[in-house]
Amino acid sequence: MSAPRPLPAGVGDADFGRALAGFGDAVGAGHVLWDIAQLLPYGRIMLPLPDEDHQPSAVVMPASVEEIQKVLAVARRWHVPLWTVSTGRNFGYGSAAPATAGQVVLDLRRMNRILDVDAELGTALIEPGVTYQQLQAHLRERNIPLWLDFPAPGPLVSPLGNTLERGGGLTPYGDHFQHACGMEVVLADGSVLRTGLGGIADTTSWQAHRYGYGPYVDGLFTQSNFGIVSKMGIWLMPAPPAYRTIMAQWWQDEDLGRAVDAIRPLRLAETISNFGTLANATLMLTSMAKREEVYDGLGAIPIARANEFAKARGLPPWVYLFSLYGTPEQIEVDTRLVKRALEPHGATLVLDVDDPLQRNELSLQAFTLLNWNGGGGLCWFSPVAPNRGTDVVRQTELARRIMDAHGVDFMTGMTINGRDILNVMPLVFNRSDAVETALVRACFEELLTEFAAHGYGFYRTGIGFMDRVAELHGRAGHEFALRLKRALDPLGILAPGKSGIRI
Amino acid sequence: MSAPRPLPAGVGDADFGRALAGFGDAVGAGHVLWDIAQLLPYGRIMLPLPDEDHQPSAVVMPASVEEIQKVLAVARRWHVPLWTVSTGRNFGYGSAAPATAGQVVLDLRRMNRILDVDAELGTALIEPGVTYQQLQAHLRERNIPLWLDFPAPGPLVSPLGNTLERGGGLTPYGDHFQHACGMEVVLADGSVLRTGLGGIADTTSWQAHRYGYGPYVDGLFTQSNFGIVSKMGIWLMPAPPAYRTIMAQWWQDEDLGRAVDAIRPLRLAETISNFGTLANATLMLTSMAKREEVYDGLGAIPIARANEFAKARGLPPWVYLFSLYGTPEQIEVDTRLVKRALEPHGATLVLDVDDPLQRNELSLQAFTLLNWNGGGGLCWFSPVAPNRGTDVVRQTELARRIMDAHGVDFMTGMTINGRDILNVMPLVFNRSDAVETALVRACFEELLTEFAAHGYGFYRTGIGFMDRVAELHGRAGHEFALRLKRALDPLGILAPGKSGIRI
Repeated sequence: MSAPRPLPAGVGDADFGRALAGFGDAVGAGHVLWDIAQLLPYGRIMLPLPDEDHQPSAVVMPASVEEIQKVLAVARRWHVPLWTVSTGRNFGYGSAAPATAGQVVLDLRRMNRILDVDAELGTALIEPGVTYQQLQAHLRERNIPLWLDFPAPGPLVSPLGNTLERGGGLTPYGDHFQHACGMEVVLADGSVLRTGLGGIADTTSWQAHRYGYGPYVDGLFTQSNFGIVSKMGIWLMPAPPAYRTIMAQWWQDEDLGRAVDAIRPLRLAETISNFGTLANATLMLTSMAKREEVYDGLGAIPIARANEFAKARGLPPWVYLFSLYGTPEQIEVDTRLVKRALEPHGATLVLDVDDPLQRNELSLQAFTLLNWNGGGGLCWFSPVAPNRGTDVVRQTELARRIMDAHGVDFMTGMTINGRDILNVMPLVFNRSDAVETALVRACFEELLTEFAAHGYGFYRTGIGFMDRVAELHGRAGHEFALRLKRALDPLGILAPGKSGIRI
Repeated sequence: MSAPRPLPAGVGDADFGRALAGFGDAVGAGHVLWDIAQLLPYGRIMLPLPDEDHQPSAVVMPASVEEIQKVLAVARRWHVPLWTVSTGRNFGYGSAAPATAGQVVLDLRRMNRILDVDAELGTALIEPGVTYQQLQAHLRERNIPLWLDFPAPGPLVSPLGNTLERGGGLTPYGDHFQHACGMEVVLADGSVLRTGLGGIADTTSWQAHRYGYGPYVDGLFTQSNFGIVSKMGIWLMPAPPAYRTIMAQWWQDEDLGRAVDAIRPLRLAETISNFGTLANATLMLTSMAKREEVYDGLGAIPIARANEFAKARGLPPWVYLFSLYGTPEQIEVDTRLVKRALEPHGATLVLDVDDPLQRNELSLQAFTLLNWNGGGGLCWFSPVAPNRGTDVVRQTELARRIMDAHGVDFMTGMTINGRDILNVMPLVFNRSDAVETALVRACFEELLTEFAAHGYGFYRTGIGFMDRVAELHGRAGHEFALRLKRALDPLGILAPGKSGIRI
């Protein structure tokens, strides 16, 4: 231990050494990382926060439930906090880094078995370290006609990890938690819980039925630190006979409200059943241009400039990219309904465009936005709106005003559900520029405060902002979470600060 | 207090009197029932259990959250258990009666305000005492084109209560909990929690977005006793332009397996998006005949006899009743797909049949089964199967064998989901016949044991059987529930015994 490194809060050097030795006994010394160079990737974040606030003290990589249990025993003994990641690719929300410096990252990537795939029912049982890429290869090798629903950050993300963050994708299975079925959870005391019908001896239906008997508890283990999920069932979509990806374009910036109001009935009726995205021109430009090509003036890109640049390349201010799935006949009928619903409200439709994420293909396309200004800074602002033009317009005006004042480019890719919209805005910035980083941070904090003041909540947030976001969601909910935390992890060793929850 | 009455366990006469006085202060003396005659309806059950094991000691009817809080304070003071019901019509699972004798029924029927309906988003915010009938009248008076999803027990059931039991209906919104969005919960200590985005000041999206930030906790309040839900958001289906109810018939008893396997792909692809029911002939006969017309021999109705009687009336051994919703064009296309999928597997289809529950109309039809043998006994056996012919056939053989041995008629109405099937079997019996009642009870207990031994769990169960069913679902899940219970209700005043959970 030559270089300086953070220690877990309240743990001295000697005890930390004993804990490391214990972890080594638990998982094999080769699977405990504590050399500064080895830790570097785990502390690498894209957020507008000081690196040193989120550096881990070590990394432990168990290979089994039994090893997790042994690691937990050591953590309890020495009061060492464990920050669990599945593969640690929570990009723009903190990647693998802990909410507070000095936590030990519990990296589950070695637990990467695909335990079961039921081709008939469309279910799988996987471990945390399984990636989308790996699961896709598994299905293809066996010619199993099931689709995956990929999240934007790409092939090496863990379906389990993404689901626990309540992440999403673009197909009709885009709400990942809604398609999770049955979990195995190792609790802080080392006991193992199987949710749903997982507790029945020789269960036949663990991955088939979500609820089980008595309280349905799976939601407790999402966006939280109540347990370590060691296995999870997921539902996979049967490959549809056909699909058609459609781009609906609105050509005026002020069309946003009517676009939303025109899309809503199609989503509510499930004529459009997938989690399509309504994106603005600037977001689309990130995949086809560098920022300096679009604008080299001071401050944020003016909306008019971005829209002008996009129009010259055939792109409108607002694009809704979605897909229809089914038989060719179903798709024809649904296409007519879509046209009838959108065209009178200002949309022009482009049929049969290509989007890998909407057709069971992996893509890193969404992450071209990191190249936008080459600075490696990314911070997602993710408020929720009711699915209503007036609210989305209000959010957009609010965000643009605040971002403008901080010199941050406004971009959004809205996931349009039936009743709500996840208005996901990437704040892309040059993280090597300290002033810009500070401005983005101030911008983000003002966005949080202002949106909450307007009655809007947030679907997800990154480390460093979790306490604040939890606070904005109200005292009662937070106290309730704390009460559960004290019952389930009285020593507070699991991921303190996750979603603002700590003892 | 002239007649004998049970007291809450461990509470003496004098203290109980003080508690009643306290309840009177809390809600007004007129809203505390303790006269034996007044209590009678609350102790009336259909289950094969002794009445005396489930008689309440009193009933308290608060009219507001504040009154619930006052009632809780009294209950904590005197350690009086409160068995919460919304309207108390959990027929065949215990109706309004408590899991153990002497509990005070907390009847929320006076809290019956429809607090909000959003016609655009298709959401409502309701109190526990609101009934389906009341909500339907509200929508119709205002010409709001939203549909309700009615459960079988009819118009006077509470959507909130049914959802907390994880009940279901027949439209595409048939999984009621899946369409609940945002709860207000009064905890045992009197604190009030609003889940989801309900904690944001002036929230815009409480009924639009289900999850909120941090752990998603709504499932905790279903089939449990962790809090008193005082408000709940529900999603309502936009009235479809058209619908078609179809009856698929299979004419051989041994067609069951292939029927299930033929239906599954249609459900997985959401070509059939509603929660249709696969019923056997005997269940269907309950709505058109008296038992003695079908069979007057000893023991259970022989399958062959029931099928023969049904066939003579144009009904097959197995009927799958489901609906297609959408535009007429969509329905035409989907009808062709359904035909193509089912007819080669032995089905004959009858198009455009009528089923009120599949078209936003209330009906008591399902409860004609209480008239089957005129005895008022009804006990639902509700195992879960994976959606697979072999499993459903195995369950059917198992159930028939056990029911036959106890002289109980085999009936089933299976809710066919994409991946699982709720194989809901009513045990209908003459509750005034003590021998028959005892046989049904023994039958039910053997069904539970045998199904669990074959790896099947249960979606729901009635009072009197909750401890056993919780036990069959495994120790770890039960211990987890107890841990939550101790954290949330350390005195154990909320519905002890619900889902087997008691301190």
